[in-house]
Amino acid sequence: MDAPDPLLPAALPRASRGWPALRDPNRNGIWRHRPALGLPAGIPEISLGEGDTPIVPLKRWGSAHGMRRVLAKLEYVSPSGSFKDRGAAAVIAVLAGAGVTSVVEDSSGNAGAAMAAYAARGGLRAQIFVPESAPAAKRDQIAGYGAEVVAVAGTREDVATAAEHAAHAPDVAYASHARHPAFVEGTKTFGLEVATALVDDPPLHIVLPVGNGGLLLGAFKAYRELAAAGFPASLPRLHAAQASACAPLAAAFAAGADAPATIQAQPTVAGGVAVGRPARGAEVLRAVRASGGTIVDVDDAVARLTRAELSRLEGLDLEYTSAVAFAATARLRDSGAVGPDDRVLIAATGSGLKDAGV
Amino acid sequence: MDAPDPLLPAALPRASRGWPALRDPNRNGIWRHRPALGLPAGIPEISLGEGDTPIVPLKRWGSAHGMRRVLAKLEYVSPSGSFKDRGAAAVIAVLAGAGVTSVVEDSSGNAGAAMAAYAARGGLRAQIFVPESAPAAKRDQIAGYGAEVVAVAGTREDVATAAEHAAHAPDVAYASHARHPAFVEGTKTFGLEVATALVDDPPLHIVLPVGNGGLLLGAFKAYRELAAAGFPASLPRLHAAQASACAPLAAAFAAGADAPATIQAQPTVAGGVAVGRPARGAEVLRAVRASGGTIVDVDDAVARLTRAELSRLEGLDLEYTSAVAFAATARLRDSGAVGPDDRVLIAATGSGLKDAGV
Repeated sequence: MDAPDPLLPAALPRASRGWPALRDPNRNGIWRHRPALGLPAGIPEISLGEGDTPIVPLKRWGSAHGMRRVLAKLEYVSPSGSFKDRGAAAVIAVLAGAGVTSVVEDSSGNAGAAMAAYAARGGLRAQIFVPESAPAAKRDQIAGYGAEVVAVAGTREDVATAAEHAAHAPDVAYASHARHPAFVEGTKTFGLEVATALVDDPPLHIVLPVGNGGLLLGAFKAYRELAAAGFPASLPRLHAAQASACAPLAAAFAAGADAPATIQAQPTVAGGVAVGRPARGAEVLRAVRASGGTIVDVDDAVARLTRAELSRLEGLDLEYTSAVAFAATARLRDSGAVGPDDRVLIAATGSGLKDAGV
Repeated sequence: MDAPDPLLPAALPRASRGWPALRDPNRNGIWRHRPALGLPAGIPEISLGEGDTPIVPLKRWGSAHGMRRVLAKLEYVSPSGSFKDRGAAAVIAVLAGAGVTSVVEDSSGNAGAAMAAYAARGGLRAQIFVPESAPAAKRDQIAGYGAEVVAVAGTREDVATAAEHAAHAPDVAYASHARHPAFVEGTKTFGLEVATALVDDPPLHIVLPVGNGGLLLGAFKAYRELAAAGFPASLPRLHAAQASACAPLAAAFAAGADAPATIQAQPTVAGGVAVGRPARGAEVLRAVRASGGTIVDVDDAVARLTRAELSRLEGLDLEYTSAVAFAATARLRDSGAVGPDDRVLIAATGSGLKDAGV
């Protein structure tokens, strides 16, 4: 007997309209997509009910920017307040399944909170390294989950190096959202949800804020695997949005380079995309180019304005990092890369409550 | 031809297991339950994708308190961070459908944020009256949606009175979460979701934090209407949890009274249940008694401890108001009202991010 293809959910029912239900309603969170996840068998299905985030049309905001068919997927409607929950559930499940009892992570905020939450949920200890500049609300949230928060001076890379060193202790694993392969298996569920929910009228563009690129790579992997399995979902153009103050991928894209540019990062309100040396940068560049997308950067003033617009016109409570993707979409419309009737889906990745006071 | 029963979704498909699908997957948020909602025809289906919140087992926390079958429904995984989104979507939709262009609300926080978000989403102006003591994060969130925040000194009732006065201006409606009947139609979707998701193994108890009682009354109405329509869901015991500093319903329940007790409210970290004179108090008392439930109060020290327990043991990020319901459940277990193998569902109503710094 052949080994089952992980993307062909033979044991799952088919939905009424002929589209295979890549979902098991009797499971929770990302594990609803268990048959499509490239994760080891027998691991615990650690979950807080992440995923299945709303997709809502933005008529008023879209119309203000000359676009008639804008959708937002509200990834901040998640247990710890960001899309990182999808990846954290997968990483912690894999590590718990391997017998790990203590994890180390480095994160400017959302990933740290997510990893701390899922470590608590799985009964693992967590030590989270954060830059000294991380907002108080994010640090407090991480500590609230019982994780040890270690503030590190210096660059974002200094924080990662400190975490890597700590992970060399016995029984401790480096649960890196930027490096652990299970993280992208978790974020792949974002792409599976978009592809299946919008099968009748698929988006031509998906715009996402990109720091390490975990969500973009998850979306790319979902569409690539769906296509390989013969499902009728063609890859949308994946557009990555960065903050101008820290845009190594936008610079590399503009220069036609294969690897992130060497840059001097400046401070930005968009902490979630402030990654000067993205570990998966070359992969992100390949994925964006393969999809026919682009990488654009926007400055903080525009991100602030866009965040306020979305709150006032649509009732969305975004963090600045998420606003960057919406501001980038408006730029893509201005440049003609997005047409007035193109269907565009934008990932609203993190909750504005986390940026209170920034 | 008879008028259709709003609870008999004749136009909806039946799910495979014989349970009627009270859901329309082509709609968004609470409007997935449109056929079951007692709301006027033709109103706009204003939504941010609220509802459909996760239900997760709490094995570790339950076990620490001698309960083997505890579930939490994570109502804080909502667009504005609390269950109030369900009611706000319904109220704003009804008012927008009636031609109202400006709304007034009074709220200690979550309801104000929800009403401001849905007013923005529907293109209505909003003026939100809050007590001077409301946490900064909640006030900032309300103002962020473009609503005018009016801080009022004095008691919670003084705030309501100020809002009622403001609503007497022309074209302005009082979008009160505590009084508008559509609010409970919206929160009814909480009960519909619990009843349908857990039909095979229903909860014997539902425990909810109660201030005005909007969520408890919604759950009660859902079960009562399901029973009237012949659906196989029997009413769980509905237990209301209050903060000891402000517990007019717990006092009335203990005294066998039909109306809320007159109390002198003290400060509490559980701002969401600090309602000294609940407008629907008599209804709450009737619903709790009809269900065989109880009303208990817990003090702030226990609420703080419980919030920390849930973060550390389960990865839940609750506000203190929500922690009150979990603390009350532990008390019900101690008193024997909840047995060790009873299935208990607790409403985790609001996000801990809103209580940052409290």
